[in-house]
Amino acid sequence: MSETARNFTDRLDRLGEVAVRIGLNLQPGQELLISAPLEAVSLVRRITEHAYRAGASLVTTQYADDEATLARFRHASDESLDVSADWLADGIARAYRQGAARLAITGANPTLLNGQDPQRVSRASRAASRVNRAAMEIITRFDTNWTIVAYATRSWAAQVFPDLAPDEAQDRLWDAIFSASRLDAADPVVAWGAHNATLHARAAMLNERRFHALRFTGPGTDLEVGLADGHAWAGGSERTSSGVACNPNIPTEEVFTTPHSHRVKGIVRSTKPLFHQGTLIDDINVRFEDGRIVEAHAGQGEDALRRILDTDEGAARLGEVALVPHASPISETGILFRNTLFDENASSHIALGQAYTKCLFDTEGATPESLSARGANTSMIHIDWMIGSDRIDVDGLDCDGKATPLMRKGAWV
Amino acid sequence: MSETARNFTDRLDRLGEVAVRIGLNLQPGQELLISAPLEAVSLVRRITEHAYRAGASLVTTQYADDEATLARFRHASDESLDVSADWLADGIARAYRQGAARLAITGANPTLLNGQDPQRVSRASRAASRVNRAAMEIITRFDTNWTIVAYATRSWAAQVFPDLAPDEAQDRLWDAIFSASRLDAADPVVAWGAHNATLHARAAMLNERRFHALRFTGPGTDLEVGLADGHAWAGGSERTSSGVACNPNIPTEEVFTTPHSHRVKGIVRSTKPLFHQGTLIDDINVRFEDGRIVEAHAGQGEDALRRILDTDEGAARLGEVALVPHASPISETGILFRNTLFDENASSHIALGQAYTKCLFDTEGATPESLSARGANTSMIHIDWMIGSDRIDVDGLDCDGKATPLMRKGAWV
Ligand SMILES: [Zn+2]
Ligand SMILES: [Zn+2]
Ligand SMILES: [Zn+2]
Ligand SMILES: [Zn+2]
Repeated sequence: MSETARNFTDRLDRLGEVAVRIGLNLQPGQELLISAPLEAVSLVRRITEHAYRAGASLVTTQYADDEATLARFRHASDESLDVSADWLADGIARAYRQGAARLAITGANPTLLNGQDPQRVSRASRAASRVNRAAMEIITRFDTNWTIVAYATRSWAAQVFPDLAPDEAQDRLWDAIFSASRLDAADPVVAWGAHNATLHARAAMLNERRFHALRFTGPGTDLEVGLADGHAWAGGSERTSSGVACNPNIPTEEVFTTPHSHRVKGIVRSTKPLFHQGTLIDDINVRFEDGRIVEAHAGQGEDALRRILDTDEGAARLGEVALVPHASPISETGILFRNTLFDENASSHIALGQAYTKCLFDTEGATPESLSARGANTSMIHIDWMIGSDRIDVDGLDCDGKATPLMRKGAWV
Repeated sequence: MSETARNFTDRLDRLGEVAVRIGLNLQPGQELLISAPLEAVSLVRRITEHAYRAGASLVTTQYADDEATLARFRHASDESLDVSADWLADGIARAYRQGAARLAITGANPTLLNGQDPQRVSRASRAASRVNRAAMEIITRFDTNWTIVAYATRSWAAQVFPDLAPDEAQDRLWDAIFSASRLDAADPVVAWGAHNATLHARAAMLNERRFHALRFTGPGTDLEVGLADGHAWAGGSERTSSGVACNPNIPTEEVFTTPHSHRVKGIVRSTKPLFHQGTLIDDINVRFEDGRIVEAHAGQGEDALRRILDTDEGAARLGEVALVPHASPISETGILFRNTLFDENASSHIALGQAYTKCLFDTEGATPESLSARGANTSMIHIDWMIGSDRIDVDGLDCDGKATPLMRKGAWV
């Protein structure tokens, strides 16, 4: 532990406070919906108290239990996996429309469903995506304030530090979460202010350039990612439709924007494994033509990858491209977190599926059709995967193909 | 522990099995909604597994956390206590309409809210009752199969056995729950079949008699409870609208029916304390005129009692009257459980508020107005309180006032 380290209870309380004040920027009178693994109850309690102190009217937590999930895959019939809790998903979407904020705690066992029949896993996951779509649209549009923070569960820690004893692994993962989340600064709220300013400046620079495309080059990668017409770069805190500034990810290191769903071409190799709904997908190699993945391989989990790509029409196209320096604090931990919130913020990445409307300028009065014509992708999924490393260069391309170096060996030029 | 006692894990699994097979009689393909205190996760897991084995399509658990509830009462503003999770309550009602079964686990700290401002407690509780009304109507109509079972939390156990060490108190409470729930029989499913037959026979006898009223007499009690026109006695397993036989309470010892909301008169004294939403109400003395409580006192919690009675028009009238022999297995434990599920099944009782439509004959095509004209009460609340003991006699009265002895000193004649 560093010299500024506090005891665990104090640091957990700091995480709760940063989640409510920086992550959510919860407004007096707002309802708050939390989703969390059962094991995260101690963090949920810290968040709940800070939320009520900040004026929350009501905090409601949906706990998920890995054991219950496994019991379903072990015993439920194939057909019944098409059932998902539409009554709950629609209720949650309604809560957001009524102004509720959303906080998700990540950290559940990343490989819980390894060993389950992938057909069954995919069937249940499609059913869930279908009913969660309305809520997900509200979130991606930033119609309400939301954030994701992490809890170091024992199952997650065991996979990040397989050689350590369980307690030690969990302590180490907590140390990494606390420092990556900038909680060990003298005043975390001030530190987050400075960090947000840096990310906003980088996004503003990219918005001025108005590149036509980005080009990623490196081992196994030569990818040109066209950017959507009127794409907007974002990073750090975001403003909701009603003007509340929230930090959707704690931690965050990325600046990101909307690619053009029909102007992506070339090959790309993943630089970190992807953990999707309990399944590991590693060593991904894909080829894009006219924005669509036309060839896909994975050293591990290729079946799961194919099923993701088959989810719907937009699942094989990009909805996000993000630039992250290899020298970010998260990346410098040297830890493979096996969790998207951390790994995507340690590496430039692209996301399959749904685009963020927030990452487009001039969307006032736009229709789904007009957004789509500008290149914004739509899908039930949004799955980030990592393509950056210290061996990847990134250039910005003008309409005429002129290249401007942006990153060399993973560092901003 | 008795000779037939198994180790705790086995008994908990038996409780899970009885809850799913006897309590719910869960049908293949049904969704299941569970509500439970966080501490009950081990029982939730047993129930969840038995539910999936029985063919459940999806089991969704809403966990309640006492700490979160307390944080709200400590920090939230008065006005914000009017907010309740309408989006969730309506979603749950929709799930029931779509055919989901409901299982509630009772056992949360019975006096959690002692020491909180009763005005605030009542404000939050009214808001919750308001939004839960639709779901409650579906449940009271038995439009779906449902059950309530108990988990021996440490806070509950500490209040039942204040002189024992925490572990011992919890063990003792578990022993009482397991035996009261008829789980220590060689085959609990067979034992429940026999018990249901006894309760059905007693209800059938009372239905043949078609009494005009019941009369309770004993110390501090001389109460005539008119019965609704075409009232139906029920007890043990019930049939849902679609014909599924479920046992709504595990354990259960009562036969019960619908009183006439305007034909109750006289005085009645409670024989056990009432624990309502974390507040203790004891030594209740009330006087009825024309079905309505016109005078109400309580040795403890009188404010809370008055607030209950003020909830709405029907809150000061009766929606249920139930007969329970003093010599029931629950009562013979000699334990004051401080929990309605157990204490109401150890004592004859009446309930303020909503009547069960199930406890009326010939309701096909009936309107709310016609049911009300027959004497069925309506209210947002349904709160049972205990008026039976080994010093209470009960008579059935004909239209002309002729009395037939039903119980003497708490025993069936
Ligand atoms: Zn991203
Ligand atoms: Zn993303
Ligand atoms: Zn009853
Ligand atoms: Zn009752």
